[in-house]
Amino acid sequence: MNFDVIVIGSGPGGYVAAIRASQLGLNTAIIERESLGGICLNWGCIPTKALLKSAQVFEYLNHAADYGIEISGKTQANFEAMIKRSRGVADGMSKGVQFLMKKNKITVINGTGKLVKGPKVAVTDAENKVTEYSAKHIIIATGGRAKELPNLPIDGKKVIEYRKAMSLEKQPKRLVVVGAGAIGVEFGYFYHAIGSEVSIVEFLEQGLVPREDADISKELNKLYTRKGMKVYGGWAVEKVDTSGKEVKVHMKNRKDGKEETLTCDVVLSAAGVTPNTENIGLEDLGIATDRGFIQVDTHYRTNVPGVYAIGDVLATQALAHVASAEGIHCVEHIAGMEVEPIDYNNIPGCTYCSPEIASVGYTEAAAKEAGYEVLVGKFPFTASGKAKAAGAPEGFVKVIFDKKYGEWLGAHMIGANVTEMIAEAVAARKLETTGHEILKAIHPHPTMSEAVMEATAAAYGEVIHL
Amino acid sequence: MNFDVIVIGSGPGGYVAAIRASQLGLNTAIIERESLGGICLNWGCIPTKALLKSAQVFEYLNHAADYGIEISGKTQANFEAMIKRSRGVADGMSKGVQFLMKKNKITVINGTGKLVKGPKVAVTDAENKVTEYSAKHIIIATGGRAKELPNLPIDGKKVIEYRKAMSLEKQPKRLVVVGAGAIGVEFGYFYHAIGSEVSIVEFLEQGLVPREDADISKELNKLYTRKGMKVYGGWAVEKVDTSGKEVKVHMKNRKDGKEETLTCDVVLSAAGVTPNTENIGLEDLGIATDRGFIQVDTHYRTNVPGVYAIGDVLATQALAHVASAEGIHCVEHIAGMEVEPIDYNNIPGCTYCSPEIASVGYTEAAAKEAGYEVLVGKFPFTASGKAKAAGAPEGFVKVIFDKKYGEWLGAHMIGANVTEMIAEAVAARKLETTGHEILKAIHPHPTMSEAVMEATAAAYGEVIHL
Repeated sequence: MNFDVIVIGSGPGGYVAAIRASQLGLNTAIIERESLGGICLNWGCIPTKALLKSAQVFEYLNHAADYGIEISGKTQANFEAMIKRSRGVADGMSKGVQFLMKKNKITVINGTGKLVKGPKVAVTDAENKVTEYSAKHIIIATGGRAKELPNLPIDGKKVIEYRKAMSLEKQPKRLVVVGAGAIGVEFGYFYHAIGSEVSIVEFLEQGLVPREDADISKELNKLYTRKGMKVYGGWAVEKVDTSGKEVKVHMKNRKDGKEETLTCDVVLSAAGVTPNTENIGLEDLGIATDRGFIQVDTHYRTNVPGVYAIGDVLATQALAHVASAEGIHCVEHIAGMEVEPIDYNNIPGCTYCSPEIASVGYTEAAAKEAGYEVLVGKFPFTASGKAKAAGAPEGFVKVIFDKKYGEWLGAHMIGANVTEMIAEAVAARKLETTGHEILKAIHPHPTMSEAVMEATAAAYGEVIHL
Repeated sequence: MNFDVIVIGSGPGGYVAAIRASQLGLNTAIIERESLGGICLNWGCIPTKALLKSAQVFEYLNHAADYGIEISGKTQANFEAMIKRSRGVADGMSKGVQFLMKKNKITVINGTGKLVKGPKVAVTDAENKVTEYSAKHIIIATGGRAKELPNLPIDGKKVIEYRKAMSLEKQPKRLVVVGAGAIGVEFGYFYHAIGSEVSIVEFLEQGLVPREDADISKELNKLYTRKGMKVYGGWAVEKVDTSGKEVKVHMKNRKDGKEETLTCDVVLSAAGVTPNTENIGLEDLGIATDRGFIQVDTHYRTNVPGVYAIGDVLATQALAHVASAEGIHCVEHIAGMEVEPIDYNNIPGCTYCSPEIASVGYTEAAAKEAGYEVLVGKFPFTASGKAKAAGAPEGFVKVIFDKKYGEWLGAHMIGANVTEMIAEAVAARKLETTGHEILKAIHPHPTMSEAVMEATAAAYGEVIHL
């Protein structure tokens, strides 16, 4: 069969690219070896948010009295029911993608796709039957998977990755999380909230969310520790012993060489994402890669004409919205539209722990390193009426402006609902705002979003509520 | 005593103006007859949000099983405790303003201020002692109060206004709310959520939130009715009988003349706000008013040199953030800064019922009436992964663009957390965005804010997830 576009992989890069391709009149097929929607819908963004919502509601229950509510009796997290709800939400979303494929007249091909000379795509189905498909344009969107650390082999039982962490049969009593990026701190929060003992080990000294602005990390370290989690920043896992009933995690402090052993039931390895670029035929076609990542130009073209790549197979941020944007761009370019390259400095990142974290642009350190003279403003939610009324005074908004031209270099937020607040910064930065315009954009009262205006005011020495 | 600036009234207009004045080096005094912070902090925005949070948490409890949480025993809203928490939050915020006054070296004068010839301000204190103060600039920021309907005299017991509604000693079993603007629907939601029987009567046919876009009203009417509240849109209250133990509200359908009587314990009159412009000396100084509102120019100057007015005493939107912005503008102008007039078409409005409502700019009807050819896009939260994961699939985002130039004419949102999402539209509209730029601003996944991007895509026929 012959298509205009074949997309290999139906994650948020692939299925979005396929829909946009179909909208633009291209005859499109999509190849998926598992469930439509890929990791994001089935084992990532969506089911984790369902679990985190359960945890949040459970936290509200435990603090019901603070809000003037009485509970006679006991409250209990039903782990199985939480997992079941999460799986249900994921399944519903995957069915939604199925519907979208049908509605957009996209051919769904079930099986494992591999590039072969032509270039064509050979698809091996469940019965091991191989069928070849050709297309004018082939988009590789095979995504990524959990990275395995050499000292922490994943056995799927005692040492698990995120996928297993959201489908365990039994809640672990003691959990050690290795890696304190978004996935690590989200699962850490979830399991702690529902009653597990949680320790989080991070190789980098900054500790939790080590790629965020240092102030954000510091705040989350403080809040997690206060909640009762153990945070180890700057420790390397040396060895894991899974031979006994308990798991022993041997680790070493990277600064002073001190050794410590953590005992637990389950270790979650959350050391990042590695691209799915093996066994998809890259070598046969001579597609250029760099340390496992496929190399592309600003229109996502590989070095082989007619073959494109988007999403986690690239060295760009391994985020669903990046993959989607790359997919749309790639397909619009294929369709002959004039498209602006994606600005990778204006990609928001969100972590859905509690409080939430959201950021975009330069950290303070990165801005200084890039040579900017910066104006920094910070507004704590303790000074926000809405945050106080909501019982959520933790966290702050931090903004960074270029002193010379007023350019909004970065926004860093930690607090309730900040993942819904970062879009303002993304849109305003895209529109090349200056600090003055944010300051004079009348934010509604009472909202947490006022903190963006106030932090900006603080940067310019005009803050009202501090 | 002689000041550079005297502000009469310490609500969010007055106290913010005073702080900004002090920042700009002006020797400033503020006059308050009651608690610092005015209605907003003490009897408006802040304490109501505290109550609404209690209601939201109580709703979560009642749906705990949906999130995988078991409660053995009963849950009970403790009305008194909720009121107490709300008062505590308000008191804390008022103390915060006290601190800000001190920090900014603003002279706080307790008493009732009145303009007298000079112009000066005569302040009557608690002992009825009158002291006169003079200043180069006097800012009237005396705010507003609940409007009383001729057919619904407020007695403070059976017929109450918002202030009493947030400090009742006992939860009413049956509540009738007259007026379905923000105040009416917020209290309606609160009392219904904690177990009162609630009916809401609105004079305008659109029913709930009748000034919002018609689609928003329609959605809220549907959701409130589904929750179990009774909504009467297009009914006029003819008479209220408070002579018996129960209150009888006689009303008439404005279309067909049908009559109906509602029986309840308490009636909340929420018919809007009327300016506090009586007995403040306007007539003595000859300050021009129009239907009770003080008339000002774009820098908030009245017709009397040296006298300014901001906030609810003006005919501009009776909103805290409008008052604050007017206060800042007024004072910056006094200090000799170049300031751009406030764009009253870019003022967000928020209603903190559940689901929340937020909007800015033209409604669809108003845009068409203004002569625009419009592109309208709508994205329902049923199609949002984040909303589904959060168990909050109600509502939608609706956006309106000018077909010719792509100008963002209006944004209308109903759903969880939308009050934190509207700032994006405000900032982007201030920056004169077009639809294309919102479409290409990469919103983080998974968030509710993606719905803004998707609704915009829908307006341009490029929506992905529908």
